[in-house]
Amino acid sequence: MDCYKELKSLLTDDQVSINETILREHSFDESSHPPVFPSIVVFPHTTLDIQKVVDYANKNMLPITPYGIGSGLEGQAIPIKQGISIDFQQMNNILEIRPEDLVVRVQPGVTREQLNRTLKKHGLFFPIDPGADATIGGMASTNASGTTAVRYGAMRQQVLDMEVVLINGKVIRTGSLASKSSSGYNITNLFVGSEGTLGVFSEITLKVHGIPETISAGRACFQSVKECGEAAVALLTSGVSIGRIELVDERSIIQMNKYHETSFEERPTLFIEITGNASGVQHDVSFTKEILEEYNCSSLFFESDSKKRALLWRARHELSYAFRHPYPHLSVLGTDVCVPLSSLPRIVEMTRKEIDSLHLDGAIFGHVGDGNFHTLILFDPNSPSEREKAERLNETIVSFALKCGGTCTGEHGVGLGKQKFQRLEHGDSLDIMIGIKHLLDPNNLLNPGKIFSDTEIESLSSFQK
Amino acid sequence: MDCYKELKSLLTDDQVSINETILREHSFDESSHPPVFPSIVVFPHTTLDIQKVVDYANKNMLPITPYGIGSGLEGQAIPIKQGISIDFQQMNNILEIRPEDLVVRVQPGVTREQLNRTLKKHGLFFPIDPGADATIGGMASTNASGTTAVRYGAMRQQVLDMEVVLINGKVIRTGSLASKSSSGYNITNLFVGSEGTLGVFSEITLKVHGIPETISAGRACFQSVKECGEAAVALLTSGVSIGRIELVDERSIIQMNKYHETSFEERPTLFIEITGNASGVQHDVSFTKEILEEYNCSSLFFESDSKKRALLWRARHELSYAFRHPYPHLSVLGTDVCVPLSSLPRIVEMTRKEIDSLHLDGAIFGHVGDGNFHTLILFDPNSPSEREKAERLNETIVSFALKCGGTCTGEHGVGLGKQKFQRLEHGDSLDIMIGIKHLLDPNNLLNPGKIFSDTEIESLSSFQK
Repeated sequence: MDCYKELKSLLTDDQVSINETILREHSFDESSHPPVFPSIVVFPHTTLDIQKVVDYANKNMLPITPYGIGSGLEGQAIPIKQGISIDFQQMNNILEIRPEDLVVRVQPGVTREQLNRTLKKHGLFFPIDPGADATIGGMASTNASGTTAVRYGAMRQQVLDMEVVLINGKVIRTGSLASKSSSGYNITNLFVGSEGTLGVFSEITLKVHGIPETISAGRACFQSVKECGEAAVALLTSGVSIGRIELVDERSIIQMNKYHETSFEERPTLFIEITGNASGVQHDVSFTKEILEEYNCSSLFFESDSKKRALLWRARHELSYAFRHPYPHLSVLGTDVCVPLSSLPRIVEMTRKEIDSLHLDGAIFGHVGDGNFHTLILFDPNSPSEREKAERLNETIVSFALKCGGTCTGEHGVGLGKQKFQRLEHGDSLDIMIGIKHLLDPNNLLNPGKIFSDTEIESLSSFQK
Repeated sequence: MDCYKELKSLLTDDQVSINETILREHSFDESSHPPVFPSIVVFPHTTLDIQKVVDYANKNMLPITPYGIGSGLEGQAIPIKQGISIDFQQMNNILEIRPEDLVVRVQPGVTREQLNRTLKKHGLFFPIDPGADATIGGMASTNASGTTAVRYGAMRQQVLDMEVVLINGKVIRTGSLASKSSSGYNITNLFVGSEGTLGVFSEITLKVHGIPETISAGRACFQSVKECGEAAVALLTSGVSIGRIELVDERSIIQMNKYHETSFEERPTLFIEITGNASGVQHDVSFTKEILEEYNCSSLFFESDSKKRALLWRARHELSYAFRHPYPHLSVLGTDVCVPLSSLPRIVEMTRKEIDSLHLDGAIFGHVGDGNFHTLILFDPNSPSEREKAERLNETIVSFALKCGGTCTGEHGVGLGKQKFQRLEHGDSLDIMIGIKHLLDPNNLLNPGKIFSDTEIESLSSFQK
């Protein structure tokens, strides 16, 4: 309990906790990875607080695991080596809004919905929308994206600059307020997606965007997920000003209708959003209808009414919960591959066949505009054979995605679940990553056990031999 | 001459040269940095050829400097430590075009115009357009951009994957064909902008884009560069679908008219391009006119005629040549800062005043949509006082840009000229960069003397002490 006393002396009493309930809250995320309790939880208010905690951890060789809101899907916030969980809920200030520069500066604990409520007053919005109301810090740490990446890119395309506390206690800035730079190596994009393994984020500067003048959203139903995929590829290469384009399979629509009491037609569906000025959107909606008809689109509705649009996107965003909440006794395994656009129809079709042939209950949906889709597989956590089948399916999907030139994770990150695919995906590039990890965290204290397996991290990278 | 013989035995006779003319051709670029002859020039055809050269250089401790087409503006291709210049002109094959994936794979010696000629047949284009017909390898090495970055981003937003030959002879792939990924650290964006200091690029996979259905281009003249800047900020935050927006000052227009025999009104001007579908563009052009009138726009012309548009953009692209070619006895110093949008009017106004008060002949133009602008200063290379005044002006502009939260180089890169600003701009982040340089190039053989000064590189980074 020295650690508890010492951290309280560095911070204040109410910024440090070893309360059982608090420890439990920081032991898990929304994945099916098993929980591990941290030894202690701290709640910093400032960059200086983080520096004190990091310095203390470094001197005492204690692992540090940052915690946003616990909505991660690969166990990134689970402190698998125990140690200190740094919870950012009290670092949730929007520090600066610069409407003329289309830039905001926030603390890592700000959530995306909190940010958007504030930005709305300026006619601005922050587009990145993973299903959960995640924190900006958490989203930066996994390079999160969501339904709008097809238009705006992922977190890497939004983060201009970060303040980061390094393990040696130094505080750096990774970028600048300029919208582009050719000065030095790109350190910002190295930290974005590093899942807390290279440093602790203390401030994040983001690009924001003007709310589009006109938005039209629609649903297009097809005979098969393969036709959905093909129609999506055709739309995406047509030049239509797509804001979002999501594939939702029949099983997902059935669950959506149950959970939200909606009455969407229970068929493979594309949810589409077209944005721009009024005349441009009208023109693109007509063109979209023409294109979709060529792919046996059986029904098509477009609406500009903002309430109906909101319902449609809420149903889509909460799809994962629609599967999780009604089956509390079941676990959910989610896949997250991303492939080149042209491979999408094939991999989606293969996935549907595999789910059926394994007699699993599973749904397919995703960000078809990026070639990124998810499979949700329900399984009984007490049945080793069901878990094994679900994991085998994940491996089959990843293996197919890598063969197409894709990636094992489009937006959820590596965390615990995707470590086993890292060498296969990255080859000798993985040694560069491990070299950089050694450079910035020589004692492996920053979120240890994430991204790299212990075996990988303990073998010195071939560049340092 | 052992080196000459040995490299010829590894490659073929005509892939290795010590011809005086060839050596001279590889001694300079388009900057005013003094030339240095390489010891030898090699012309690889394949990744294996590059591996052989890199392996030979590594064993014999010879510096390696990649050479694209020599259009760089900060001396990146000048082999200041001599050694081997690797010329990519014979690695200029477009290896694969995947229209459905909006992706191409090219060798580094392919030039952007060569690529666009081929893509046009597929209704596609590659947007990044530095003034010169640079190679894709060179553009990736400096994170080049140009007039379209406001819409499509810089090279970092286009490069999906690279094949890179490391100094240890290994060949890695940095990314994948997926449009986004959360797998591992982002190594691709570390290599993009690394100016040949971390590895030698052997293949580059790029995003490409559909040619917009409708393009309208216009010129808007103002009373002052400050009003140009303010009008640009207003347009950029209005939601208009801007394809390009360039500021060109009065002095630049005068030179443009002389060089191209055009008759553009000789006032501070915005060159604007609006793209989208026909109805959307028409709507946006009207809206643009309304906005610009609020900023005392004295004249405004829009045209959809493709020949007139081409002339306008050619005049803009060749502006740098319009100053260089008529004054062969004068040198040109170009600045390249990038600042947050709202700071642009102030810094442009300050720059104009400084040029005038130093009695220099100089022009201001640039990519106002990114907050990136250039100042071209003509000076007599034989007059130390003129050179000193030009360099002082550069320092004043960089210092102002950094104070606004900007960067010393928006698109030209660090090379030789921007090294002195690296510590000021990056602070302790520079130590991370130097650490990565050590990791990937422990003997400092990859384009030595670029980005980092010898003093910086020789002091081991604080992370490795």
